[in-house]
Amino acid sequence: MTRQILRGNLCWSAAPDRLRFQERGCLLVQDGVVQGVEQELPDAWKQVPVRDFGQCLIIPGLVDLHIHAPQYEFRGTGMDLELLEWLNQRTFPVEARYRDEAYAEKAYQVFTQDLKNSATTRACIFATIHLPATRILMEQLEATGMKGMVGKVNMDRNSPETLREKGPEQSAGDTVKWLEACAGRYKHVQPILTPRFIPSCSDALMRRLKEIQIQYRLPVQSHLSENPGELEWVKDLCPEAEFYGDAYDRFGLLGGEGCPAIMAHCVYSGKEEQKRLLERGVWIAHCPQSNMNLASGIAPVREFLDLGLRVGLGSDVAGGSSLSIFRAMTDAIQVSRLYWRLADRDRKPLTLDEVFYMATAAGGSFFGKVGRFEPGYQLDAVVLDDRRLNRLGNKTLRERLEQVCYLSDEREIVAKYVAGNPVIEPALP
Amino acid sequence: MTRQILRGNLCWSAAPDRLRFQERGCLLVQDGVVQGVEQELPDAWKQVPVRDFGQCLIIPGLVDLHIHAPQYEFRGTGMDLELLEWLNQRTFPVEARYRDEAYAEKAYQVFTQDLKNSATTRACIFATIHLPATRILMEQLEATGMKGMVGKVNMDRNSPETLREKGPEQSAGDTVKWLEACAGRYKHVQPILTPRFIPSCSDALMRRLKEIQIQYRLPVQSHLSENPGELEWVKDLCPEAEFYGDAYDRFGLLGGEGCPAIMAHCVYSGKEEQKRLLERGVWIAHCPQSNMNLASGIAPVREFLDLGLRVGLGSDVAGGSSLSIFRAMTDAIQVSRLYWRLADRDRKPLTLDEVFYMATAAGGSFFGKVGRFEPGYQLDAVVLDDRRLNRLGNKTLRERLEQVCYLSDEREIVAKYVAGNPVIEPALP
Repeated sequence: MTRQILRGNLCWSAAPDRLRFQERGCLLVQDGVVQGVEQELPDAWKQVPVRDFGQCLIIPGLVDLHIHAPQYEFRGTGMDLELLEWLNQRTFPVEARYRDEAYAEKAYQVFTQDLKNSATTRACIFATIHLPATRILMEQLEATGMKGMVGKVNMDRNSPETLREKGPEQSAGDTVKWLEACAGRYKHVQPILTPRFIPSCSDALMRRLKEIQIQYRLPVQSHLSENPGELEWVKDLCPEAEFYGDAYDRFGLLGGEGCPAIMAHCVYSGKEEQKRLLERGVWIAHCPQSNMNLASGIAPVREFLDLGLRVGLGSDVAGGSSLSIFRAMTDAIQVSRLYWRLADRDRKPLTLDEVFYMATAAGGSFFGKVGRFEPGYQLDAVVLDDRRLNRLGNKTLRERLEQVCYLSDEREIVAKYVAGNPVIEPALP
Repeated sequence: MTRQILRGNLCWSAAPDRLRFQERGCLLVQDGVVQGVEQELPDAWKQVPVRDFGQCLIIPGLVDLHIHAPQYEFRGTGMDLELLEWLNQRTFPVEARYRDEAYAEKAYQVFTQDLKNSATTRACIFATIHLPATRILMEQLEATGMKGMVGKVNMDRNSPETLREKGPEQSAGDTVKWLEACAGRYKHVQPILTPRFIPSCSDALMRRLKEIQIQYRLPVQSHLSENPGELEWVKDLCPEAEFYGDAYDRFGLLGGEGCPAIMAHCVYSGKEEQKRLLERGVWIAHCPQSNMNLASGIAPVREFLDLGLRVGLGSDVAGGSSLSIFRAMTDAIQVSRLYWRLADRDRKPLTLDEVFYMATAAGGSFFGKVGRFEPGYQLDAVVLDDRRLNRLGNKTLRERLEQVCYLSDEREIVAKYVAGNPVIEPALP
């Protein structure tokens, strides 16, 4: 039994629309699990050494529900295209290079190092179709101590030959090979089933993936209703589907009993699709920066929340240029304010409290009891020294947290814990 | 006669819609003025020492056409309000504190240091109504070596007593006192006439400011058509004005002959107002981040450009949370893509080439021959080492520049020159 105590200015979500602050609070942790927050130490904890972070902010780790590791290398370039042209001109040629293991080793090292140094503690990650490269990414991520779900991507149609699996059997067979090779291998990293999106996966492949999903009890991640051009294409490809989401659901891959699923974007999810997502208990990965960069639009997040849908955040690198989930939080607020102004004055913009919840508790719940400082939750935490930003030292805790969300970067991070283990080691006092 | 040569990967605007790149080019400079760009040194320059920046990017300095120095301290906080409530609840109480010189000294030091360390080389800055504090800001800015125009703000109505001048005569009188105190005092900093906006300035004050403008031959900066609530208010205050801009123009303060003017925002400038802005030769300061944060909307920049209006960029701290004009560039692209998607499919989104021109050449032209690497232009330049971003070293110059715009911060800046003088000194080789 290992106990630890972290002390500092604690900020976390008490409810989906309410932040809670505890000035100079003590976070009591046993075996990597939060036992509670106290102002004074209970007697039973008085012998446990306190890691005191002074006036630093301590927040739950941020969760990135949607990111493409192989695209990290070209983030912030090619931002003048729309989704489908961007995939063909920028993304697919780069992803094809990951069949070269030496290249994958080098490129993924850049990604995992930057992810490790960020405020993200957990992530759901797309790799490529390549088995060796996907394993390399998983090994590297495992070595950081972060938690993550990584998907070997399935795609057997509508992509260049250099980035297309040779039919459903090869794609499914490779997936099984990959899953067998993963089994029991990692402590922090786990596989997630990853059909890229409907246009990339034949019906036969989708059927095989459902069998694999059941056999290996896998979660699923994919893309949904991102961009008008994509929607039209899916209609052509699946005329029998009631709406885009139904094209996954027909194969049992839109979530539901025993199949937790993340669907990224949902910019154009209408009432029917939203209802289905709710029935299936889907996590939506809202990716506002990518939706701006690729001119996709603005997802109706207020509608999602009113309906009771689960909404987390995704950086969607490299549709999104920044790895930062702080940036995703403030982008989500900003585009919601534009949506209110330009599209629908009845939809209240998102608040800081709400996007913080999305980035921590809502995203974290995909991993279990993660994302809050409440008893029974795993200790994922980021410690932030904001003196570079708050130089006059005149701000309330809420103002400091807001400023950190808008303006901090990895220079503010002094320590990071995932499931109780230090991933960024605090400097010795 | 002082000659210097900078060598590196030069990037600048050849035209409003076209970037130019010169790999490992030589920038020839005499007495702080660019003489030309050459691949090989002409004979006459062979004795001049070359400052070789290797594979670094060298770009013209960025120009911030609209920023509020006293608001810098609370940037990135209070971002859940609209313009008029934000002014009353956040901005005015903080600006009122600048009557305290010790406070101004301390708070402005944070601003000027961060501005110095940024990629901005020139800025048009709002101070407050306070004379001593405005002088403190000007002294501090002068000491950095950057160029800037600073305005003591005029406001004699519709603000709390703690931030309101006692009638038009006091406001005008203080302005003259300030101008007299500035005369001949600064090499880099100059005063700019700054009526806050129509709601803050009585008609009598506007008339006095025009007299002062003529007498001292001053440029002017103010706000225009930012937010629907503000527009309604101006209609009530000036029922005789044809449109918001006309309320300035009636007093001769919307630019025109001998009165160069910057108007910030112009989110709701309609056809008539745009036509007037064109006739008056006004510089528009486009401030996309602020327009998101305060839920103002998206300015129709494509219309402005098609009409031939001058459009530069502003950070509008603290309506904007970030001081970075790189961020303003990419925000301008992103919101233009949303505008295209949500509001008007006939308006082509802005390109990297266009926003780069806005941030350098268009903004720079308010200061004269500034913002390009062409003969006769003052040498404002920023040298960027992007190896933290481009770690695989596999990008073209254009891709590197784009990535720097989306992702760089002051850590990439290795040197900065303003009018030929180093403001950030390059480390010795």
